Amino acid sequence: MSVGTIYGVGLGPGDPELMSVRADRLVRAARHVAYFRKAGLAGRARAIVEGMLRPDAREHPMEYPVTTEIALTDPRYNETLSAFYASATAHLRTLAEAGEDVVVLCEGDPFFYGSFMHLQVRLKAHVPVEVVPAVTGMSAAWTATGQPVTWGDDALTVLAGTLPEADLARRMAQADALVVMKIGRNLGRVRRALETAGKAERALLVEYASMGDQRVTPLAQVEATAVPYFSIVIVHGQGRRP
Amino acid sequence: MSVGTIYGVGLGPGDPELMSVRADRLVRAARHVAYFRKAGLAGRARAIVEGMLRPDAREHPMEYPVTTEIALTDPRYNETLSAFYASATAHLRTLAEAGEDVVVLCEGDPFFYGSFMHLQVRLKAHVPVEVVPAVTGMSAAWTATGQPVTWGDDALTVLAGTLPEADLARRMAQADALVVMKIGRNLGRVRRALETAGKAERALLVEYASMGDQRVTPLAQVEATAVPYFSIVIVHGQGRRP
Ligand SMILES: C[S@@+](CC[C@H](N)C(=O)[O-])C[C@H]1O[C@@H](n2cnc3c(N)ncnc32)[C@H](O)[C@@H]1O
Ligand SMILES: C[S@@+](CC[C@H](N)C(=O)[O-])C[C@H]1O[C@@H](n2cnc3c(N)ncnc32)[C@H](O)[C@@H]1O
Repeated sequence: MSVGTIYGVGLGPGDPELMSVRADRLVRAARHVAYFRKAGLAGRARAIVEGMLRPDAREHPMEYPVTTEIALTDPRYNETLSAFYASATAHLRTLAEAGEDVVVLCEGDPFFYGSFMHLQVRLKAHVPVEVVPAVTGMSAAWTATGQPVTWGDDALTVLAGTLPEADLARRMAQADALVVMKIGRNLGRVRRALETAGKAERALLVEYASMGDQRVTPLAQVEATAVPYFSIVIVHGQGRRP
Repeated sequence: MSVGTIYGVGLGPGDPELMSVRADRLVRAARHVAYFRKAGLAGRARAIVEGMLRPDAREHPMEYPVTTEIALTDPRYNETLSAFYASATAHLRTLAEAGEDVVVLCEGDPFFYGSFMHLQVRLKAHVPVEVVPAVTGMSAAWTATGQPVTWGDDALTVLAGTLPEADLARRMAQADALVVMKIGRNLGRVRRALETAGKAERALLVEYASMGDQRVTPLAQVEATAVPYFSIVIVHGQGRRP
C-alpha cells in the first residue's frame, strides 16, 4: 500500500468558475475533503465547493479553537493555535499513512496568507504534500474595480489590516499601488492610516469579490465601522501608461 | 445584431491545468482569439493554449513594434507604443461592432502588470469588455519554492526589476516578504540591490514557474548575468508562525 498525498488546493476568490481546472478536477474526485471552519459555521472554503463533492466523500472539518477571543499578543494565542494545528496534522497524517489522498480546501491561494501553510510545514517531512496555487482574493478585487492595480513599474504593497496603525500609515505612504487585506473589524484603523498617508480619497472597498454579493464602494462613502471578512481595500497605482 | 464582447482572459502562469474553468471554457469556445507577441515569435500567451483552440478559430496576433530597442525614457517609446495600442484597439473594436466576441489571451492575471490593460482602457467606453482574473506568475513561483511567501502579518512588496537600482534597494530593505518580477536582463541590478538591502542570501530565483522547465535556485548560486523572461525572485517573509 502506498502513502497518500495531502493536497492543499486553492479554490480562488469564491466564484466556482475561477477555480483552476486542476482544483476543479481534484475537488470533484476527492474521497477525503478537509477544511478549516469556525465552530458552528459551515466553513468559507467548504461553501465554495457546495454541490461539487462526490456523494460518498468523507468530510473532515477542522474547527478553529480561537480566532478573536484571545489577543494576538497573548502567548496563549500561539500556544492554542499551535496545539490545534498539531492535532489537525496528526489526523491528516493518519489518513495519508493509511493510503488515502486528502484534498484540503483553501480560500484563495494557499501560500498567500492562508492557514494551510501551518499544516504543510508540519506535514512535509512525513507525507507527500502538494500545493495547487489559485486566483487570490486581491486579483478578484482589483478586477472588480474595472481598473488594473499597477501601471508601468508601480510597486505593489500588500498589507494586513491587523498591523499597528503607525506601521500601516508608514507603509501606505510609501506604496504606489496598495492592497489591504483582513479589514473586518480593523476598518477604523485602516481608514485612519489611509488618511495619514494621504490615500483615503482614492481608496476603494471591495466586498465579496467575485461572489454573488460583490460590491465596490469608494471608502469615503462607507459609513459602517466594520465590514465583512471578505473585504479588501484597493488603491490603484498611477504609473506610466502609454 | 448585438455588439460583441472583448474578453481579457487571464491564462495563469503557464501550466494549462492552472487556467480557470472559466478561461478554459472561453478559450475552447472562441471564434476569435487575439494575443500580443514579438514579431517573428509564436507568442507566449498563445503557446499556453496550444491544442485548445477550435479548428476554425480566427487568430489575431498583435505584434509589438518595440520592446527594448528604444529606451523607456525616450519619449518615442511611449508614442510608438501608444500608436500600436490604438491600432490594436481599432481592430478589436471593429470585430466587436460586427457582433463578434473576441478572447484576448493574457499571461497570468490581466490587471497585474499585463498589456491587456492598455487595450481595456481604450475600449471600455465603446464596447463591452470583461476581464477574467487568473493565477499570477508570482503565485506559481512561491508555490514552486515549497514555502508560503507570507507568514502572520508580513507585508508583501512586489517590485519590477526595471526600477532604478537605488529605488529597488530602498524598497527591498523595507520589505518583509518580497517578489521581484521582470528580471530578465535586469538581473545584475536586482542582485546588487538585494545585496545593498541585506536580502541577497535569502533570495530564490524561480524560472518558468509551473511550466515544464520550472527551476528554483538560490540566487547566490546563479552565475548567469541574464535569465529567462519568465523569472521571478522571491524572498520569503519571516513573520509569526504558531
Ligand atoms: C486569511 S486571508 C486569505 C487570503 C487568501 N489565501 C487569498 O489568496 O486571497 C483572508 C483575507 O483575504 C481577503 N479575501 C480573500 N478572498 C476575498 C474575496 N473574494 N473578496 C474580498 N476579500 C477577499 C480578505 O481581506 C480576507 O480578510
Ligand atoms: C509583463 S509581466 C506579466 C505578469 C502577469 N500578468 C502575471 O499576473 O503574472 C511579466 C513578468 O511576469 C513574471 N512571470 C509571469 N509568469 C511567470 C512564470 N510562470 N514564471 C516566472 N515568472 C513569471 C516574470 O517576472 C515576467 O517578467
